[in-house]
Amino acid sequence: MSKNDRISMSVIRRLPRYYRFLSELDEQQVERISSTKLAAIMNVTASQVRQDLNCFGGFGQQGYGYSVKQLKEEIKGILGLNNHYQAILIGAGNFGSALANHLDFQKLGFKLIACFDGDPEKTGQALGALTIRAESELEEFCGSSRVDTAILCIPKYAVESELDRLYALGIRSFWNFSHYDITRRYNDAIVENVHLSDMLMTLCYKMNNLHS
Amino acid sequence: MSKNDRISMSVIRRLPRYYRFLSELDEQQVERISSTKLAAIMNVTASQVRQDLNCFGGFGQQGYGYSVKQLKEEIKGILGLNNHYQAILIGAGNFGSALANHLDFQKLGFKLIACFDGDPEKTGQALGALTIRAESELEEFCGSSRVDTAILCIPKYAVESELDRLYALGIRSFWNFSHYDITRRYNDAIVENVHLSDMLMTLCYKMNNLHS
Repeated sequence: MSKNDRISMSVIRRLPRYYRFLSELDEQQVERISSTKLAAIMNVTASQVRQDLNCFGGFGQQGYGYSVKQLKEEIKGILGLNNHYQAILIGAGNFGSALANHLDFQKLGFKLIACFDGDPEKTGQALGALTIRAESELEEFCGSSRVDTAILCIPKYAVESELDRLYALGIRSFWNFSHYDITRRYNDAIVENVHLSDMLMTLCYKMNNLHS
Repeated sequence: MSKNDRISMSVIRRLPRYYRFLSELDEQQVERISSTKLAAIMNVTASQVRQDLNCFGGFGQQGYGYSVKQLKEEIKGILGLNNHYQAILIGAGNFGSALANHLDFQKLGFKLIACFDGDPEKTGQALGALTIRAESELEEFCGSSRVDTAILCIPKYAVESELDRLYALGIRSFWNFSHYDITRRYNDAIVENVHLSDMLMTLCYKMNNLHS
């Protein structure tokens, strides 16, 4: 068990934002920042910033603020962005293709090494720098390449059988865009769910309830 | 100020999940469900379910559980999914197009009524049932149609000027896929942010820290 196991998910979810803002500050050649200023950018309190960073051992010096570059690098290390985890995309439909083209995986800790689609018409087509592979090649590919993560951009009804295949191939980490609940089937899986429709419903709630 | 103003965002974020699961149960013609069973599906405790639903006035009867259909309808009402808020898409690139094609807006409380793109080559092209409009038509369109929400699928550098235009046109609700912090510029805006790259970094963190 790692030392970071007891840190709350709400702190963890703020880390990428710290990293993004610190990267911007670093690009603007800002050298040091106080917890007060960092808090204003993050839209939290200064005491929250200090508490968050204390979870990982501090990094600041009372009265001197934080070194932007150093803090950025520390958070990059905590996030593990240098790991270059190898990811495959399952499902190269509209959404999967947009993701593959849209995100800078290398900057986010991953390398997208292959994509698979069940539609035979797509086999051989280009997707960015990759070529779409037939789903039937999955076992062979995973036998010869290390695959750390699968990005699931397939409809809910297709997830279960695909998940079983991927799990049997040793994959335990999933970026999941379907509404299938992976951890109920495999409780040792590491999962990050993206429920876009839940987010849109949340916006609807806010409009319905929080306005004027 | 609405009665629901003091309900925490973590409760609110669970509502779409309740709604999804209850819709599935309703489709499977399940009539009643206990808080214990609902909790198991939701992966929270039964007491959490009761607490969550009590925020909105209860709905259950001690010992009888919840009527699936009734609870589903109640939550639908709380979320405001019958409002049919009129949404426009700003940016019909890979990602915006995938969203427009991928999501069933009507089921999620919205109606996608138009999409705009700054690329003149896209003007007039079809996107699902819509035709992509030139960005320059925005003012005219918003002058003649009620627009409740803008979905921002444009790069961060383009957001600020576009946001100012939309705000001037009276739009106060945004589903934001860029990393631009809308509420720092307009603190009366209602915003739901989708930071996909933050989510991928969070997955990276989990793999780096929570595994074995």
